[in-house]
Amino acid sequence: MSAFPKLVSEHLCFGGKIGFYRHVSDTCNGEMRFSVYQPPQAKSAPVPVLYFLSGLTCTEENFMGKSGAQQFAAKYGIMLVVPDTSPRNRGIEGEDKDWDFGTGAGFYVDATQEKWRSHYQMYSYVVRELPALIADNFPVQPEKMGIFGHSMGGHGALVCALRNPELYKSVSAFAPIAAPMRCPWGQKAFSNYLGADKESWRDYDASELVLSAKFKRPILIDQGTADQFLAEQLLPEAFEKACAEAGQPLTLRYQEGYNHSYYFIATFIEDHIRHHAIALCS
Amino acid sequence: MSAFPKLVSEHLCFGGKIGFYRHVSDTCNGEMRFSVYQPPQAKSAPVPVLYFLSGLTCTEENFMGKSGAQQFAAKYGIMLVVPDTSPRNRGIEGEDKDWDFGTGAGFYVDATQEKWRSHYQMYSYVVRELPALIADNFPVQPEKMGIFGHSMGGHGALVCALRNPELYKSVSAFAPIAAPMRCPWGQKAFSNYLGADKESWRDYDASELVLSAKFKRPILIDQGTADQFLAEQLLPEAFEKACAEAGQPLTLRYQEGYNHSYYFIATFIEDHIRHHAIALCS
Repeated sequence: MSAFPKLVSEHLCFGGKIGFYRHVSDTCNGEMRFSVYQPPQAKSAPVPVLYFLSGLTCTEENFMGKSGAQQFAAKYGIMLVVPDTSPRNRGIEGEDKDWDFGTGAGFYVDATQEKWRSHYQMYSYVVRELPALIADNFPVQPEKMGIFGHSMGGHGALVCALRNPELYKSVSAFAPIAAPMRCPWGQKAFSNYLGADKESWRDYDASELVLSAKFKRPILIDQGTADQFLAEQLLPEAFEKACAEAGQPLTLRYQEGYNHSYYFIATFIEDHIRHHAIALCS
Repeated sequence: MSAFPKLVSEHLCFGGKIGFYRHVSDTCNGEMRFSVYQPPQAKSAPVPVLYFLSGLTCTEENFMGKSGAQQFAAKYGIMLVVPDTSPRNRGIEGEDKDWDFGTGAGFYVDATQEKWRSHYQMYSYVVRELPALIADNFPVQPEKMGIFGHSMGGHGALVCALRNPELYKSVSAFAPIAAPMRCPWGQKAFSNYLGADKESWRDYDASELVLSAKFKRPILIDQGTADQFLAEQLLPEAFEKACAEAGQPLTLRYQEGYNHSYYFIATFIEDHIRHHAIALCS
């Protein structure tokens, strides 16, 4: 049984409550932070749980403050859980140097390289430690678990679901970094966290994983056409092609004129939560 | 005709667009910032316009990023305009010293005291200069204008409407500083901006103004019962008592367990925008 995490602050919202928490993570070898939205329905019975993985530079706060997700989580009776995007303040040389690597940029991988591996284990943290802690301490139906995210976290959600179809009943993404082995952000992160051997990168690239994944439930992706990172970093067309090859059901929607911001996420959050509700609340 | 303000950034949101702007204000004697949400309906015809005045420490960004208002402004076809909460970087000695006075805390008054008066003219800026600039440069129906706000800005909205019933067709507030002459925040701001003569303060105190105001249209106020500032700073009961004396229609709703945050605002924003839509869109 996990120890109950330390409550940092709490806010009522749409009849439910948002809590910001800290705890000591075994997986990431030090303090980690996350936030939880408990919908009103969780007062009387366990509810399904939906994880949101955030993008580069975000904390556990951005999504709770800017997405407008709570009104729809309250409508459908789904708990939201938002981990931070990396360990912080670990004293690793250079951890704060770049905005797209290290602090705020864990990329949801288990680092294998000496410098990072004792703390940067975000994949195992998100897939195993955090869900176990949530199941132990919050009123959830742990077998009804979905995952989604934005940008780095949109891709993280795809990886988590494709590798663990037995754990995740649903997945979706906003503007994911859809083929990280082929873009500068992904190449920088993977070479530093995982090393030079590109074979080891395939376990964390959704456009590779989908070719052999057993997930096969429908995936929803929204992508703004005015996204400043679309052409160089996001590459949804690579993931779309791989899904087609693999027979993976995918709805990839290009949203005309939308950019990479939370204003884009807020506009389409209701569709995403409904997508998860269909899988989790039936 | 006002010069078109400089567009700093633009984001699509719920089919409309958010713009962040800067311009040189005559009233505040230097650069001022504001944001605008143009609903989809504004592409084809002028729409009503609703001003939101923010609370202490906020900029023109907080409300746009955190309130979730755009979906309802898009539903009803209302433009949202959000000014910054004060001039900034004017080189006034001590302007950045306190979080509850000076920068980020203009209190929507026209300062009369030597040190502040050449820049801190937020009342005239909000009531006259900004609406004129909006009417000149955006597709609005300037005669269909409402105003609302939060905390310092909730009170500012009440003052603007009560003093200008011919300009504002509707008003509402979240957790306003409802009787500033009787609370520490208001006394600090008024004594510094307006001087020691408390008679001059009455023009900026809603609980005084309402006693002789000709507004008389229904006012909506939401107030969280877990608001950390309720007992000492906000005093909605004083405004309620004055409204009762004056025959001013008021719906003051105490929302059980809600605090002073944007999570509270987001929860009830739909009700507020509907309140304004009833007055502005008929």
